[in-house]
Amino acid sequence: MESRKSALVISAHAADFVWRCGGAIALHAEKGMDVTVVCLSFGERGESARLWKEGRTLDEVKAIRRAEAEAAAAALGVHRLDCFDLGDYPLELTRADKDRLVALIREVQPAFMLSHSQYDPYNTDHMYTTQVALECRMIAQAWGHEPGQQVLGAPQLYLFEPHQTEQMGWKPDTFLDITPVWERKRAAMEAMQGQVHLWDYYTRVAEQRANHFKRNSGGQAGGRDCRYAEAFQSVFPRTVDAL
Amino acid sequence: MESRKSALVISAHAADFVWRCGGAIALHAEKGMDVTVVCLSFGERGESARLWKEGRTLDEVKAIRRAEAEAAAAALGVHRLDCFDLGDYPLELTRADKDRLVALIREVQPAFMLSHSQYDPYNTDHMYTTQVALECRMIAQAWGHEPGQQVLGAPQLYLFEPHQTEQMGWKPDTFLDITPVWERKRAAMEAMQGQVHLWDYYTRVAEQRANHFKRNSGGQAGGRDCRYAEAFQSVFPRTVDAL
Amino acid sequence: MESRKSALVISAHAADFVWRCGGAIALHAEKGMDVTVVCLSFGERGESARLWKEGRTLDEVKAIRRAEAEAAAAALGVHRLDCFDLGDYPLELTRADKDRLVALIREVQPAFMLSHSQYDPYNTDHMYTTQVALECRMIAQAWGHEPGQQVLGAPQLYLFEPHQTEQMGWKPDTFLDITPVWERKRAAMEAMQGQVHLWDYYTRVAEQRANHFKRNSGGQAGGRDCRYAEAFQSVFPRTVDAL
Amino acid sequence: MESRKSALVISAHAADFVWRCGGAIALHAEKGMDVTVVCLSFGERGESARLWKEGRTLDEVKAIRRAEAEAAAAALGVHRLDCFDLGDYPLELTRADKDRLVALIREVQPAFMLSHSQYDPYNTDHMYTTQVALECRMIAQAWGHEPGQQVLGAPQLYLFEPHQTEQMGWKPDTFLDITPVWERKRAAMEAMQGQVHLWDYYTRVAEQRANHFKRNSGGQAGGRDCRYAEAFQSVFPRTVDAL
Amino acid sequence: MESRKSALVISAHAADFVWRCGGAIALHAEKGMDVTVVCLSFGERGESARLWKEGRTLDEVKAIRRAEAEAAAAALGVHRLDCFDLGDYPLELTRADKDRLVALIREVQPAFMLSHSQYDPYNTDHMYTTQVALECRMIAQAWGHEPGQQVLGAPQLYLFEPHQTEQMGWKPDTFLDITPVWERKRAAMEAMQGQVHLWDYYTRVAEQRANHFKRNSGGQAGGRDCRYAEAFQSVFPRTVDAL
Amino acid sequence: MESRKSALVISAHAADFVWRCGGAIALHAEKGMDVTVVCLSFGERGESARLWKEGRTLDEVKAIRRAEAEAAAAALGVHRLDCFDLGDYPLELTRADKDRLVALIREVQPAFMLSHSQYDPYNTDHMYTTQVALECRMIAQAWGHEPGQQVLGAPQLYLFEPHQTEQMGWKPDTFLDITPVWERKRAAMEAMQGQVHLWDYYTRVAEQRANHFKRNSGGQAGGRDCRYAEAFQSVFPRTVDAL
Repeated sequence: MESRKSALVISAHAADFVWRCGGAIALHAEKGMDVTVVCLSFGERGESARLWKEGRTLDEVKAIRRAEAEAAAAALGVHRLDCFDLGDYPLELTRADKDRLVALIREVQPAFMLSHSQYDPYNTDHMYTTQVALECRMIAQAWGHEPGQQVLGAPQLYLFEPHQTEQMGWKPDTFLDITPVWERKRAAMEAMQGQVHLWDYYTRVAEQRANHFKRNSGGQAGGRDCRYAEAFQSVFPRTVDAL
Repeated sequence: MESRKSALVISAHAADFVWRCGGAIALHAEKGMDVTVVCLSFGERGESARLWKEGRTLDEVKAIRRAEAEAAAAALGVHRLDCFDLGDYPLELTRADKDRLVALIREVQPAFMLSHSQYDPYNTDHMYTTQVALECRMIAQAWGHEPGQQVLGAPQLYLFEPHQTEQMGWKPDTFLDITPVWERKRAAMEAMQGQVHLWDYYTRVAEQRANHFKRNSGGQAGGRDCRYAEAFQSVFPRTVDAL
Repeated sequence: MESRKSALVISAHAADFVWRCGGAIALHAEKGMDVTVVCLSFGERGESARLWKEGRTLDEVKAIRRAEAEAAAAALGVHRLDCFDLGDYPLELTRADKDRLVALIREVQPAFMLSHSQYDPYNTDHMYTTQVALECRMIAQAWGHEPGQQVLGAPQLYLFEPHQTEQMGWKPDTFLDITPVWERKRAAMEAMQGQVHLWDYYTRVAEQRANHFKRNSGGQAGGRDCRYAEAFQSVFPRTVDAL
Repeated sequence: MESRKSALVISAHAADFVWRCGGAIALHAEKGMDVTVVCLSFGERGESARLWKEGRTLDEVKAIRRAEAEAAAAALGVHRLDCFDLGDYPLELTRADKDRLVALIREVQPAFMLSHSQYDPYNTDHMYTTQVALECRMIAQAWGHEPGQQVLGAPQLYLFEPHQTEQMGWKPDTFLDITPVWERKRAAMEAMQGQVHLWDYYTRVAEQRANHFKRNSGGQAGGRDCRYAEAFQSVFPRTVDAL
Repeated sequence: MESRKSALVISAHAADFVWRCGGAIALHAEKGMDVTVVCLSFGERGESARLWKEGRTLDEVKAIRRAEAEAAAAALGVHRLDCFDLGDYPLELTRADKDRLVALIREVQPAFMLSHSQYDPYNTDHMYTTQVALECRMIAQAWGHEPGQQVLGAPQLYLFEPHQTEQMGWKPDTFLDITPVWERKRAAMEAMQGQVHLWDYYTRVAEQRANHFKRNSGGQAGGRDCRYAEAFQSVFPRTVDAL
Repeated sequence: MESRKSALVISAHAADFVWRCGGAIALHAEKGMDVTVVCLSFGERGESARLWKEGRTLDEVKAIRRAEAEAAAAALGVHRLDCFDLGDYPLELTRADKDRLVALIREVQPAFMLSHSQYDPYNTDHMYTTQVALECRMIAQAWGHEPGQQVLGAPQLYLFEPHQTEQMGWKPDTFLDITPVWERKRAAMEAMQGQVHLWDYYTRVAEQRANHFKRNSGGQAGGRDCRYAEAFQSVFPRTVDAL
C-alpha cells in the first residue's frame, strides 16, 4: 500500500479539478496511482450562478456543489477528495489552513502536484491558490516544520489549463494523451449540473489539445493518433537520464 | 541498422558542441544512438584567438580547429562529424547551404536536435544558427521539398547552455545526468587545445548543474546523487502518456 | 437617471486620479457619464512632503488633501468622490474595506474602471491597489456575494499612466484625446497646491501623449490634430463588431 | 467608389487567410469594405501534404491551391485576391518583391491590415511575413519612396490567430463577433479540400472564441450572445475619443 | 562618524547574506563603509536540515544558527548584525515588524540596499522579503511616517544572486570584483557549519562570475584579471554624470 | 592624442543622433572624449517629409540632410561624422558595408557605443541598426578578422531613447545629466530645419528625464537638481569595483 505512487491536485473551487485535469486524474488512477484532490472552496459564491438564480441558500449551494464534486471524483477514480470549505471570492487561507494543507501534502507525498496558472486577472482566487501551493510545498520540505514527520521531496508542480489561456500568460509544455479515459472525464463533467455550458466547451478544449499533441509528436509524418488531450505548464525543470 | 535512433547537433562553431552538450552526446552514444554533429564553421576567426596571436594563417587555423573537433568527436563517440566550413563572424548561410542542412536533417531523421540559445547579444552567430535550425527543421517537414525524400517528424529542439545564461534569456527546463560519461566529456574538452581556460570553466558548469539536478530530483529528502549534469531548454512541448 | 452610463476610478492616493486620468474623467463627464472616484487614502503620509515640512499634524494634512481632492473633483465634473481614508504608506485593506469597495462597484455598475499599473517598485501602494481592484471586480461579479444585489458585468479595467512608465512595465494600448477638456484638467491639477512641481510635469506628459496620438492616428499622412492626450493600458480584451 | 474603406490581409500561404481571419474578411465585406488579400505563396511545398502524397507535380499543386484560394475568396466576398507566388518553406522576398507589396499597400490604402503572429518556432514563414509586413508598412509611409504616390497613414496591424497560440507568445486583445457571416467562413474553409481535418478544428476555434467574447462583453451578467468569433492581437495602440 | 557611508543587507534567512553578497559586504567594509545586515529569520526550520536530523530543538537550532551568522558577520567585517527572529517557512511580517525594519532603514540611511530576487518558486520567503524591502523602502521615504525622523533618499536596491538563477528570472547587470576580499568570504562561508556542501558550490559561483567579469570588462582584448566576483541585478536606474 | 578616450554612435538616419543622444555626445566631448557619429543613411526617404512636399529631388534631400547633420554635429562637438549613405526605408547593409563599419569600430576603439532600441514596430530600420551594431561589435572582437588590426575590447552598447518608448519594450537603466550642455543640444536640434515640430518634443523629453533623474538620485530627500537629462538602456552588464 505504501509503495503506491500518489498525486495531489489543489483546486481553488470545487469544479476546477474536473475541467482542468480530470483526464490526468483518471489516467493516473487507472495506472494505479492514488490521486488526492483538495478543493479549497466549493466555488459556492462565485461559480454557482445558476443555483443562486434559483434562490438557493448558501448551505444549499455548498451541499449541492459538494455532491457534484463527489460524483465527479467518483467518476474519475479519485482516491480521496478533501473539501477544505474555506470560502471563495475571495479565497483566503489562515496560517492554520496552510498548516492543514502542508500536513496533507506530507501525508500524500505526491510524485507530482497540480494547480492553477500563476496569473489570472479574471479570478484572483486562482493565482492565490498557486501562490499558496508554492508556499506550502516549500514548508512541507522544511526539516524543522513539525520535525519527525516525513519531509517532502521535490515534486513537479504542473499548472493546469486556465480559461482564456493567453490572458493568463500560461504556456503549456506538456501534452498528455487522455483518450483512454475520455469517457470518465466526460462523465465527471456531466456531474457538474450547474455548468452545463462548459461540458461542450471543455470537450472542444480536449479535442484541440489532441490536435496539438499530434502536431508535437510527429505531425503529418508519423504523429500517432490522439483524440483527447490535456495540457500543462511545468513550474520546475525536469531531471532525466536521457533526452 | 535503420532502427538505431539518432540525434543531431547543430553547432555554430567547432567547439560549441563540446562545451555545451558533450555530455549529452556521449551519453546517448553509449546508449546506442547515432549522434551526428554539424559544425557550420570552425570558429576560425572569432574563437581561435590564441592561434592568431601565434601568427597562424587562416588555413592553418581551420586545419587545427578541424583536428581538434575531430578529436573531441572521437572522444565523445560521435557517429558523424560534418564540418560545413561556412565561415564565422559572421556566419551566413546561402539557400544552398540551408538545403544542404535540410538534406542532412532528413538523412539523419533525428529523434531530437540540439542547438544554441535564441538570443545572444555577445555572439550573433549563435542566435542566427538557432534561427536557421528552426527554418531548416520546418523545410525538412515539407512534403513538397524534394518530394520523394523521407520527410521529418517533429523532433524536439533542445537549446544547449550558452555562456552567461542570464544575459541570453535562456531558461533550462531539462537537467541531464552526465555522470556516467563525464570522463569522455572532459577528454573532449581537453582536445580543444586553444581554449584551455574553458576546461575548468565548463567542469564547474557541470558541477553546478549537478547540484541543480539534485535539487530538482528530490533535494535533501531523497534527491539521488549526480556529480555532473548538463542543462537544456526545450523549444517545443512534450507529448506524454503520463505526467 | 438609471440609464446614465457610469465609470469608476480607484485611486490609491488623493491626487492620483488628477494627474493620471483627470482628462478621461472630465471628458466622460462632459459626455454625460457619471464618474465616481474612490480615493483609498489621502496620500497623507507619503505624498504630502511639503505639508509635513510645514509642521502640519496628520489631521491637518488629511483635511488639506481632502479639500484639494474635492476641488479637483469639482473642476473635473466628478459625479461622486468617495474618500475611504484607509491610510497610506502602506495602504492596507481589511476584508470589510474590500466589501465596501465591492458594494460601491455594484452600486456604480461602471461601464469601465480605471486604476494603477500592475507593477511599481517605487510605490507598492499602487500595485496593491490594482490587485485589490481585480479582486473586488471579481467579487462584484459573484452571484453568491450578497445575493439579491445586482451583479457586475465585465467592465474593462484601464491602467492609467504611472510615473516613470518604463520602470513599471506599463505599455499603453489606448490613447485618448483630451484636448476638449484640457482646461479642466489643468485647473484640477492646480488645485493640488502641495505638488506644484507636478503641474508642468503632467502638462508635458499630456503634450507628449498628444504627439503619440497623432502618430498612431495617421501620422504625417492625415493624422488629425490633438494637443493633449492621456494613455491607458487595458487589462482585458475588447469585444467588437468591427475591427 | 474612392470613399469605400478598405482592408488588407497579408497571408504567407494560400490558406492562412481563410482559417485565421475569414470571418473578419466576410464581415467587413458585408459592411461594404473592399478587402484585398495577398497570398505571398500558395503554401505549395509546406502545406499541401495530401497533394504531394497523391503524386502531384509542383505546377499542379500550385494550380490546385490557387483554385482553392480563389473559391475561398469568393465565398468570403474578397474584393481582390493577389497571389504573389513567391515560393514557400522558406518564403523569401527580394527588394523588388517588397516594392511590389509596398505599391499594393499604397494602392489599397487600408484602414487596417492583418497578418501573422510575430513569433512562430514551428513555421518561420509566418514570422517572416509579419516582419515583412512591418517593413513594407514603414516604407509605404515614407514620403521619399516613389514620391508622388499617395503615402500610407498609420493603419493598425492586427495579428490573426496562429496555431498553438501559447507557443507563439500571441495574446489576443480584440474579439470580433463573426456570427453573422459564419456560413461564409465555413464555406470558405470547405473550399480547402486538401485540409479537411482543419474544418472542424477551426470551427471549434470559432466556438471557443465566442465563449471568450461573451465572457469579456459581460459574462453571466448581461454578456450578449455570440456563437462564433475570431481573435486578434493589435501591434499598435488605438486612438480614441472615448474609452 | 556620521559621515561614514553605509549599506544595508536584508536577508530572509541567517545564511543568505553570506553566500549571496558576502564579498560585497567585506569589500565595502574594507573601504570604510558601515554595513548593516538584517536577518529576518535564522532559517531555523527550512535551512537547517542537518541540525534537525541530529535531533536538535528549535531553540538549539536558532542558537546555533545565530552563532554561525555572528561568526560569518565578524569574518566579513559587518558593522551591525540585527537578527529579527521572525520565523521562517513561512516568513511573515506584521505591521510592527515592518515598522521596525523601516526604523532601521532610516537609522542606517544606506547608500544602497541588498536583498533577494523578485521571483523564486522554490522559496517564497525569498520573494516575500524583496516585496517587504520595497514596501519598507517606500515607507522610509514618506515624510509623514514618524515625522521628525530623517527620511530616506533613493538608495539602489540590488538583488543578489539566487540559487538556480534562470528559474528566478534574475538577470545580473552588475559584476563586482571581490578578489581582494575572497579569503574573508570563504572564511564566512566556512562559519556555516551546517551547509558544508555549499562552500564549494559558492566558491565555484564566484569563479564563474569572475569569468563573466572579465568577458564584460574587455574580454580577450584587455579584460583585466579577476579571480572572484559577485553578480547583482539593479531594481532602479542609475543616475550618472558620464556614461 | 592616442590616449584620448572615444565613443561611437551608430545612427540609422541622419537626425537620430541629435534627438536621442545629442546631450551625451556634447557632454563627453566637453570632457575631452572624441565622439564619432556614423549615420548609416540620411533618412532621406523616410524622415524628410517636408522636403519631399516641397518637391525636392533625392539628391537635394540628401544634400540638405547632410548639411543639417553636419551643423548639428558641429554644435555638439562631434569629433568625426561619417555618413555611410546606404539608403533608408529600408536600410540594408551588404557584407562590405558591415566590414566598413567593423573597420571604423576598430579604428575608433570606443569606450562605449550608442545605438537604437532592439524592437521598433514603427521603424524596422531602427531595430535592424542595432542588430547590425551587435554583429559588427562581435566581428570587431574577432582576432581572425583582418588579423593584425587592433581588436575591440568589450564596450558597453547603450540603447538611446526611441520614440514611444513603451511600444519598443525599451527600459532605461541609466539617466545622464545633460544640463551643462543643454544649450548645445538645443542648438543641434534647431539645425534640423525639416523637423521643427520635434524641437519642443525632445526638449520636453529632456525635462521629463531630468525629473526621473532627480527621483532616482535622492528624490525629495536630497535628490540633487537636474534640469535636462537623457536616458539609456544598457545591453551588457557593468563591471565594477564598488556598488
